[in-house]
Amino acid sequence: MAAFPEVEKIQYEGPDSKNPLAYRWYNPNEVIEGKTMRDHLRFSVVYWHTFRGTGADPFGPGTAIRPWDDGSDSVENAVNRTRVAFEFIEKLDAPYYAFHDRDVAPEGASLSETNKIFDKVAAALKEEQERTGVKLLWGTCNLFSNPRFMHGAATSCNADVYAFAAAQVKKCLEVTKELGGENYVFWGGREGYQNLLNTDMKRELDHLAKFFHMAVDYAKEIGFTGQFLIEPKPKEPTKHQYDFDTANCLAFLKSYDLDKHFKMNLETNHATLASHTMQHELEYAGMNGILGSIDANTGDLLLGWDTDQFPTNYYLTAEVMLSILKYGGLGSGGVNFDAKVRRESFEPIDLFYAHVGGMDAFAKGLKIAAAIRAEGEFDTFVKDRYSSWDSGVGAEIEAGKHDLKSLEKYMLAKGEAAPNQSGRQEMLENLFNRYM
Amino acid sequence: MAAFPEVEKIQYEGPDSKNPLAYRWYNPNEVIEGKTMRDHLRFSVVYWHTFRGTGADPFGPGTAIRPWDDGSDSVENAVNRTRVAFEFIEKLDAPYYAFHDRDVAPEGASLSETNKIFDKVAAALKEEQERTGVKLLWGTCNLFSNPRFMHGAATSCNADVYAFAAAQVKKCLEVTKELGGENYVFWGGREGYQNLLNTDMKRELDHLAKFFHMAVDYAKEIGFTGQFLIEPKPKEPTKHQYDFDTANCLAFLKSYDLDKHFKMNLETNHATLASHTMQHELEYAGMNGILGSIDANTGDLLLGWDTDQFPTNYYLTAEVMLSILKYGGLGSGGVNFDAKVRRESFEPIDLFYAHVGGMDAFAKGLKIAAAIRAEGEFDTFVKDRYSSWDSGVGAEIEAGKHDLKSLEKYMLAKGEAAPNQSGRQEMLENLFNRYM
Amino acid sequence: MAAFPEVEKIQYEGPDSKNPLAYRWYNPNEVIEGKTMRDHLRFSVVYWHTFRGTGADPFGPGTAIRPWDDGSDSVENAVNRTRVAFEFIEKLDAPYYAFHDRDVAPEGASLSETNKIFDKVAAALKEEQERTGVKLLWGTCNLFSNPRFMHGAATSCNADVYAFAAAQVKKCLEVTKELGGENYVFWGGREGYQNLLNTDMKRELDHLAKFFHMAVDYAKEIGFTGQFLIEPKPKEPTKHQYDFDTANCLAFLKSYDLDKHFKMNLETNHATLASHTMQHELEYAGMNGILGSIDANTGDLLLGWDTDQFPTNYYLTAEVMLSILKYGGLGSGGVNFDAKVRRESFEPIDLFYAHVGGMDAFAKGLKIAAAIRAEGEFDTFVKDRYSSWDSGVGAEIEAGKHDLKSLEKYMLAKGEAAPNQSGRQEMLENLFNRYM
Amino acid sequence: MAAFPEVEKIQYEGPDSKNPLAYRWYNPNEVIEGKTMRDHLRFSVVYWHTFRGTGADPFGPGTAIRPWDDGSDSVENAVNRTRVAFEFIEKLDAPYYAFHDRDVAPEGASLSETNKIFDKVAAALKEEQERTGVKLLWGTCNLFSNPRFMHGAATSCNADVYAFAAAQVKKCLEVTKELGGENYVFWGGREGYQNLLNTDMKRELDHLAKFFHMAVDYAKEIGFTGQFLIEPKPKEPTKHQYDFDTANCLAFLKSYDLDKHFKMNLETNHATLASHTMQHELEYAGMNGILGSIDANTGDLLLGWDTDQFPTNYYLTAEVMLSILKYGGLGSGGVNFDAKVRRESFEPIDLFYAHVGGMDAFAKGLKIAAAIRAEGEFDTFVKDRYSSWDSGVGAEIEAGKHDLKSLEKYMLAKGEAAPNQSGRQEMLENLFNRYM
Repeated sequence: MAAFPEVEKIQYEGPDSKNPLAYRWYNPNEVIEGKTMRDHLRFSVVYWHTFRGTGADPFGPGTAIRPWDDGSDSVENAVNRTRVAFEFIEKLDAPYYAFHDRDVAPEGASLSETNKIFDKVAAALKEEQERTGVKLLWGTCNLFSNPRFMHGAATSCNADVYAFAAAQVKKCLEVTKELGGENYVFWGGREGYQNLLNTDMKRELDHLAKFFHMAVDYAKEIGFTGQFLIEPKPKEPTKHQYDFDTANCLAFLKSYDLDKHFKMNLETNHATLASHTMQHELEYAGMNGILGSIDANTGDLLLGWDTDQFPTNYYLTAEVMLSILKYGGLGSGGVNFDAKVRRESFEPIDLFYAHVGGMDAFAKGLKIAAAIRAEGEFDTFVKDRYSSWDSGVGAEIEAGKHDLKSLEKYMLAKGEAAPNQSGRQEMLENLFNRYM
Repeated sequence: MAAFPEVEKIQYEGPDSKNPLAYRWYNPNEVIEGKTMRDHLRFSVVYWHTFRGTGADPFGPGTAIRPWDDGSDSVENAVNRTRVAFEFIEKLDAPYYAFHDRDVAPEGASLSETNKIFDKVAAALKEEQERTGVKLLWGTCNLFSNPRFMHGAATSCNADVYAFAAAQVKKCLEVTKELGGENYVFWGGREGYQNLLNTDMKRELDHLAKFFHMAVDYAKEIGFTGQFLIEPKPKEPTKHQYDFDTANCLAFLKSYDLDKHFKMNLETNHATLASHTMQHELEYAGMNGILGSIDANTGDLLLGWDTDQFPTNYYLTAEVMLSILKYGGLGSGGVNFDAKVRRESFEPIDLFYAHVGGMDAFAKGLKIAAAIRAEGEFDTFVKDRYSSWDSGVGAEIEAGKHDLKSLEKYMLAKGEAAPNQSGRQEMLENLFNRYM
Repeated sequence: MAAFPEVEKIQYEGPDSKNPLAYRWYNPNEVIEGKTMRDHLRFSVVYWHTFRGTGADPFGPGTAIRPWDDGSDSVENAVNRTRVAFEFIEKLDAPYYAFHDRDVAPEGASLSETNKIFDKVAAALKEEQERTGVKLLWGTCNLFSNPRFMHGAATSCNADVYAFAAAQVKKCLEVTKELGGENYVFWGGREGYQNLLNTDMKRELDHLAKFFHMAVDYAKEIGFTGQFLIEPKPKEPTKHQYDFDTANCLAFLKSYDLDKHFKMNLETNHATLASHTMQHELEYAGMNGILGSIDANTGDLLLGWDTDQFPTNYYLTAEVMLSILKYGGLGSGGVNFDAKVRRESFEPIDLFYAHVGGMDAFAKGLKIAAAIRAEGEFDTFVKDRYSSWDSGVGAEIEAGKHDLKSLEKYMLAKGEAAPNQSGRQEMLENLFNRYM
Repeated sequence: MAAFPEVEKIQYEGPDSKNPLAYRWYNPNEVIEGKTMRDHLRFSVVYWHTFRGTGADPFGPGTAIRPWDDGSDSVENAVNRTRVAFEFIEKLDAPYYAFHDRDVAPEGASLSETNKIFDKVAAALKEEQERTGVKLLWGTCNLFSNPRFMHGAATSCNADVYAFAAAQVKKCLEVTKELGGENYVFWGGREGYQNLLNTDMKRELDHLAKFFHMAVDYAKEIGFTGQFLIEPKPKEPTKHQYDFDTANCLAFLKSYDLDKHFKMNLETNHATLASHTMQHELEYAGMNGILGSIDANTGDLLLGWDTDQFPTNYYLTAEVMLSILKYGGLGSGGVNFDAKVRRESFEPIDLFYAHVGGMDAFAKGLKIAAAIRAEGEFDTFVKDRYSSWDSGVGAEIEAGKHDLKSLEKYMLAKGEAAPNQSGRQEMLENLFNRYM
């Protein structure tokens, strides 16, 4: 029995379609820059918001109507939920999904029982993957919801909690491997501090680095070859999250010899909470060789918390896709909708509206980005803007042929630097609009 | 003829003094933790705001009344200004000052002329230093005001501008050495971008790293042994400043093999613009061994630009001094008042009120911090909070005796982690108040 | 059987006390400006955070250990909880408490059943009030948690929901009167919008005004003479809360002829989310005659959501008490701790630490404010600063004797305005520190 | 001699044009909803940024190359500048401009001399208006740049400064009338406070109200029938600007019986600094009958100061035009580009790029908005969403037939409210994209 009997498989109908349950831009088999849209975008549905989200917020409990869910923590309910999830993903025609261990499988009375439950649900997930061809983009652990993690997991002041988290990661790595997961993600949950008065930050970060090394070692041991990803976020729930932004993560990875093993899973809403644009984070990660995957959503820049809204702004998606294309695509990563329907959008059908809109926004962004690249106007402008570095003193500096003395000599002779060119920001912004 | 005839040398008069031109807390020779207050705090007066600030803002020109200044760019005016500056610093009983090249010495028609002017003013500065015993905390270049630096200096798209900046740094390093400067600071000025559409961030950062290496090399060549410092700031004037925060700077320094040569010059207002507390930045720098010096000021957390107000909040100064004491002091750094009087505080006497208040606030902060350390209540709390790491599984993990498998085994046997302890944030905040 | 057997009644022990369960500043019977501290501060404990808060946040369920609470929605549990609450309030020596209808009494299967449950719990509350002498500062309805209020209550697009809310307010007004409540508060809960695309703001505000008029009329009908209060908040949970700040509320009240019936219940964390200082909101309300009561807490200015932390900053409490004293006290209002212990402060004893610290911070603030007023230095400064308005052209303008023409004539004759005086902000900030 | 010889009059070339100096969307004579685009948009060029802006910022002096400007304060230079301004406006085909008194005319040694200079420049402006047909959208005074206004103008603590400001407004009203200005705008400049410690907010606001009343009276006296406008801004340069946002202004106007005489001049960047969307401010003003005019620009939501960038985002302009069309247009107001080219866009041609882009963005926004209105899907959705208010209990409530008792009775009988409908935010956001 279908959970969404009123929804057929979502189809591409083109830009003029007025059907809210059809794609206007996402044409999976359309080829762009030599690759299908499906392969460029690698869309992924998240289990947590989409199948475990209730609409609860700090001011009230959930509102979501989910007729298939009996609200219990039973294994049966968990397994049944996987059926619904895959029906949804299949109808959406999304190739991937992502999960936390505790989203898909409830906890038992002890760790061993919890692991057994996880195995049962994983078996159901595997069946559904095989039935539908939907694949696992990444697995991850929820190391923040259970009260035991109140002080963090890999940065907890409680060594036992750390050990528990380690056990949980071990199991989840195994399940992720078993299900063919292409990545494994760490989002820092409560890895951070609420208050410096009670915190030994250095000791916590040392522990965190060790934790990551153990994960890397164990992946090697079991032959899990997926990419490890860290997901930067600056704050919330803690006052200071240790994975503040990409630069902060990079400093940490380099300090602890982890930079060869990790890339970034970047999220728009986390970027803007850190007061960066998403494109900045993408560029910074890309130029440092650590762009791994993205959590596709958007925040409200006038609000100060993680709203995790579905992305619909074409400027945003065009900028994101420009950077992704520039750095050669997402590799094993994907465009993962870490986004939730509003508390007031409480019907199952809202899940479809939300994903259709998000997927279309990214497809449109991809088309805009590809058109911009095909024309090459921006590339030409930038190349020209830096042309003083391609010859003469600029090229000599880049080649390491100068020091402060030689540059002083050069400039004393010249007296004043060559004139600057206008940055032309307004012209470029207008040009961008020509592709919208 | 004195510029401030109405002000005598500011004296310590103790907490009960009602004299706004006396210190209530700053008793320079008082010994705390084995060192005088003067040596702990190493106060420094900045030349730019205090002797070149006019009170101009984006909505109007300057308001400041400075009778000694004829407003011209003549060398005479510049030299005369140094006399006034040292009278001020001496009356304040501050041991240090800091300058930009372009604050103290105006530009000439060519680089060579500019350098000659700089030499003349430097001679006057040296005289004044010798006359008064006031020392140079650090020198730095202004690589952002002149229109040639509109696109940045070491990250300019214009190679000639880069060369000009290099020449300027060479000269300023020489003068800083000549004047016995104990540090040399880079604040990124316009090193950043306004818009990604016209920017090659990677190429700019490569250039910046090369620039820093040239400065390090030249310092070695001329025997300048002062500490190099970078001053993080996240935004303003550019949309994105490359030295966003300490973590970002650390990632950069590590990526380009510069981390042995640079420490941080941290500023409260820059920290909070990056949405960090100043204490966070101090702790992060301290634990990474790159805490160098501080720019003492405060921002208004409800405003989004760099207000550079004088610091008067005892909570702030106590937290700052706690971290500074924890990491063994500032070394060759100091407490440098990178702060400006309000546009409406336009009289010379306001400069005294402002510095007296700032110095007293830091002296009070030092006393609070020392009292907290003497009692040791916070240290004990933190040590106890992490005690599970001092023995048992925690100590084994720290000793590298565990991996994910052994920790899973440990936890499967135990079933659940040992209970957590309360974080006691409220109790600790109350405890902090006991020292205020 | 006591819920807090380990805690005796909290006593005043003076500034030197090291007992974290004693008051250092709150000496209830100490007389300041002719009134006891108890009567100045009128401390109130909130039922919701303190007795119904669990520590849940968007990233995990509750952590709080509350041995007396069986977690059920039974009337017995609700009544038992009132016994614990009054034991707590009594031991704290706080004269007031405040509640929402749905905090103290669970909902039944229908509105009539819900009302009956409320009556039963109200009877228990009345018994406890009589037993202890603790009084009700204010009652209010929770019109935001139940999913029926997802689109708001008095601004819902669903007229039935509006009617339900009206019924709930009627009952709560009756209970508040029965319990001698001195005020009745509206916090807008979900009165606001998430998105303008689906919202008719004008119609919603018309409905809200009608709702308030009905409440005013019914209060008159039943003889409830308590003060009506609105609590401004700019955002969260909705994107835009209609009661954005005091000025916004005042515009609304004036537009709908409600300004005679309502005052403000101001909260620090709500003020700062609106990018105002708490003191600004107090001054603005005070000068408009609508300062009613305060919700005492603090936010974290580097975070963008309502953290509702206990206030411990003496600068904040001194500023708040300065404004409260200036406007003649809070009248029927009080200092209500709308604050919650951190999720990591999960033990019952943390509730005591938190309140003791908050009460002491306000008592200290009161003492600072009273000392400032006694010395009168700030008043004198301000009076002098505006003295040009006390005679001459200034006094004539205030007396209505001028128009643009006469002022032009005056100024054409004079040519330029008299010089300004320095604003002396730095000197005044230092002066403030003399009282800390 | 033309100042912009390389630029012909900008023409409409349609969406496919690749000419950066042509309009792709702004087709002045195209009729939409019965009115030409020119009449809908009433574009206005601002004198201050566009002809007096230099690119100076707090970190450096101006960069702008303006060959026609000799940099002096001479009347000749001022008059010559007007010729250039009108050449620019004419080539742009904009129907309006706006000025401050001190933009167009320099100050003399006394007020009377200043007024004479103003008259001379006004004569030149009038000539140019007559020659070109360009009209004056509004005049205003600069009451914030001159140091005499450091403490504000109409809210200064210095009564003489107030008188000076009054004289300035009188003169500017006369000139605005003489030039046929259709509005007169007050932007609060420095009307606000830097610090509550030295401020008597109530007295300042009383003075401000009196000032506005004098302006209203004088306008009546001289027969100036233009609309008075206030321009809300929450902060910058002062910590708190009295005209914080539209709601705050409305409260002020109502408190002082000024609401009949003033409307709002709304600006996007000011709205977002107050943490409102521009559309919110438009809707709030519109529903209160005080929507007057707009300052068209955009801020950077990740920066905390007024960047005054040219608007190019189609989502923004579509939302703005939707609200403007909804409230029947701007009346005597217009779309005034209170925006400045970036400091790095220093060439005259950048002024053209900037305005062409801004005008096109608004033209595109108008077309999107008109299409949305023509289809009516959003209107239908909203009407349906509130349909419970069109009959039954909802209609009765709106008709004033209910009170709390009757609503309780209704709900006790019904037991629970009728179910809610989904808010459909995601579907609506997708629908909006169909018009982009």
